[in-house]
Amino acid sequence: MDSTAMIAEMATAARAASRSLARMSSVEKSAGLNAVAGAIRTSADAILAANALDLEAGKARGLSSAMLDRLLLTPERLEGVAAAVEAVAVLRDPVGLVIDEVIRPNGLVMSRVRVPLGVVGIIYESRPNVTADAAALCMKSGNAVILRGGSEAVHSNRAIHAAIAEGLNAAGIDPAAIQLVPDQDRALVGAMLAAHGLIDIIIPRGGKALVERVQNDARVPVLAHLDGICHTYVDKAADPEKAKAIAVNAKMRRTGICGAMETLLIDRDFSEAADVIKALADTGCELRGSAEVVALEPRAKAATDDDWGTEYLDTICAVKLVDGVDDAMAHIAKHGSDHTDAIITEDVATAEAFLSGVDSAIVMHNASTQFADGGEFGLGAEIGIATGRLHARGPVALEGLTTYKWVVRGTGQIRP
Amino acid sequence: MDSTAMIAEMATAARAASRSLARMSSVEKSAGLNAVAGAIRTSADAILAANALDLEAGKARGLSSAMLDRLLLTPERLEGVAAAVEAVAVLRDPVGLVIDEVIRPNGLVMSRVRVPLGVVGIIYESRPNVTADAAALCMKSGNAVILRGGSEAVHSNRAIHAAIAEGLNAAGIDPAAIQLVPDQDRALVGAMLAAHGLIDIIIPRGGKALVERVQNDARVPVLAHLDGICHTYVDKAADPEKAKAIAVNAKMRRTGICGAMETLLIDRDFSEAADVIKALADTGCELRGSAEVVALEPRAKAATDDDWGTEYLDTICAVKLVDGVDDAMAHIAKHGSDHTDAIITEDVATAEAFLSGVDSAIVMHNASTQFADGGEFGLGAEIGIATGRLHARGPVALEGLTTYKWVVRGTGQIRP
Repeated sequence: MDSTAMIAEMATAARAASRSLARMSSVEKSAGLNAVAGAIRTSADAILAANALDLEAGKARGLSSAMLDRLLLTPERLEGVAAAVEAVAVLRDPVGLVIDEVIRPNGLVMSRVRVPLGVVGIIYESRPNVTADAAALCMKSGNAVILRGGSEAVHSNRAIHAAIAEGLNAAGIDPAAIQLVPDQDRALVGAMLAAHGLIDIIIPRGGKALVERVQNDARVPVLAHLDGICHTYVDKAADPEKAKAIAVNAKMRRTGICGAMETLLIDRDFSEAADVIKALADTGCELRGSAEVVALEPRAKAATDDDWGTEYLDTICAVKLVDGVDDAMAHIAKHGSDHTDAIITEDVATAEAFLSGVDSAIVMHNASTQFADGGEFGLGAEIGIATGRLHARGPVALEGLTTYKWVVRGTGQIRP
Repeated sequence: MDSTAMIAEMATAARAASRSLARMSSVEKSAGLNAVAGAIRTSADAILAANALDLEAGKARGLSSAMLDRLLLTPERLEGVAAAVEAVAVLRDPVGLVIDEVIRPNGLVMSRVRVPLGVVGIIYESRPNVTADAAALCMKSGNAVILRGGSEAVHSNRAIHAAIAEGLNAAGIDPAAIQLVPDQDRALVGAMLAAHGLIDIIIPRGGKALVERVQNDARVPVLAHLDGICHTYVDKAADPEKAKAIAVNAKMRRTGICGAMETLLIDRDFSEAADVIKALADTGCELRGSAEVVALEPRAKAATDDDWGTEYLDTICAVKLVDGVDDAMAHIAKHGSDHTDAIITEDVATAEAFLSGVDSAIVMHNASTQFADGGEFGLGAEIGIATGRLHARGPVALEGLTTYKWVVRGTGQIRP
């Protein structure tokens, strides 16, 4: 069977399963997820053995130790995977929630009611836990899902998927609700991206090259972010202690996450600019600064133009002095990635100008950009962070995996 | 300048204008819209003269009388165009509305706030009033808009756009907020459809060929519906009087609108099926029915398979007997267009099964599908009806032209 036909067949089965999932109660879906978690636990030996094969192959292929660590499942990590599925089971079900409702003068009651998106495609790399995490979020929100993992985790993904299928089967749920693309042929990714009308949304989870390919080639809507070039702007009216603590935390708490600050902008009129820069340099962070920054902090290197548009994901920070909030906003509009940007100031009017003027998915006042995470927003688990403008922005969780329909209830009304 | 460069230049100017529109107050935007309405009134002579040129050219090209009527502006119609702009001015501004808000245990306040989409592209045909209607809805929702009208209305569109520009100018608003693609080269449509990242959404307004081209070729998200193959299902527990009145209204009130019923499904067990069919035939509607329908109603012709998937937009109706609500839903899933589908029944459980089981943008109980219209839903003016699954579904008005951002307000929080 060619790739297009294979994906069409999977998507058609997924569509049928999605129709029954859409009508399932929260209790039934939760029971299914708990059965999946149980099956992951009872399949632990098989999953860990499969994972060992992937690790062996990864070492033979010379994967970096960071890559191998992402691939690694231990009994503890696998227990975490099962527990995460159970945690999704107890989240509030978004399906059936009434967004708003109006009674018209003619007596018609118009309600907008949340319904599942339908069929979700997940294209991911490395981390085998995504197989269970993403599947759980899709199922809880009433969607069928087609998973396509990376070749480096193929054995682990198949073993986890086999456990999922067992759990679904035990719960009496159509196994087509959670399908894994059965082979690693790259053409199958292309077929998923082209499956307009068959797959309702594609969510890529992985490195920039993967996200870029998906965004460029997809004819199906994509929910993703390409870069997290997050800025912190320290205004002249900033509290110096907050500025130092937030700048250090935003950059250094974890440098490899998409919400990590990559560029620090400081108001030229902020009297303690040098102290904030020094605090960051004292952590061992490499600074790449404009000429004024290098003059203030001898450990800073001179930045090149490229630095303003680079997501380092490392202990490196671009630093620039700017002329107040408008200049900061102009810099962010030019170099940012619409992900997360923060202002540090005690001046409420300046803060509000920034919050309304910066056109990013997440804007923050007096807080660390490292909070850019669905869990921190109270959403439970997130399926990703989106920087596009349509449908869902910022951290996307269960609600972002739904859409709505209009339900009109009448008593025989005809239109005059 | 080539097409791509021209659209890029227009979109870049539109983006800049959209940033200032996004920060404008409701009062400022309303003042701008009222100035636009005023300028349309004072430019009436020029607009009507331009319209006469289009009509003359249309007659010379042999346009149908229906097409010419769509093109025609009279002093009364033009006053309607100006009044419609003023009606949009007084609608509630969606920008800045807080969708939801949560205070986290660490004191961070996370709010989702409505913001404009950014730059909207409208590609339309025939009706020159779209130039003003669509521009007003986009501006009220804080978006810049790039309009591309049909060649048959080129003089009218230019004259209306000149009045709009005059109004914007009088109100001190960047004229790049509402731009009209200056020439009719078809390559410019292609350039708009390809302007991923420059134009945030494209809304086609016109016939099926236009919508189909836009949906097939666009790399920019599209908000539209291709077909309105709307069904009314008359259940065995229907009230016969409601069934007759709704079937006649849904089909015959106006046959040319997308919410008009195209297929009538009747439960085989409904004792008064023949009466409903007769009521519809008595209006002069041509019926194309399954064999049982032809047996019940001698005026009905035999339907072919194509009839179940045809949007007649005419005094023609496909009619079929089905085995209850499940069979009706299966028919709709196979032949429907996800637009608007209704059930007529006095049985609440059957009604709810239909409302949750039919996966269309609008589902109705005991009401005419002709209510599928933003005004009837209380949304004010609509920019269109969408049958896609993402972002906005059903009648799309001001809210559908917005997205949201997350605004996080802190007091110095860092992430542990």
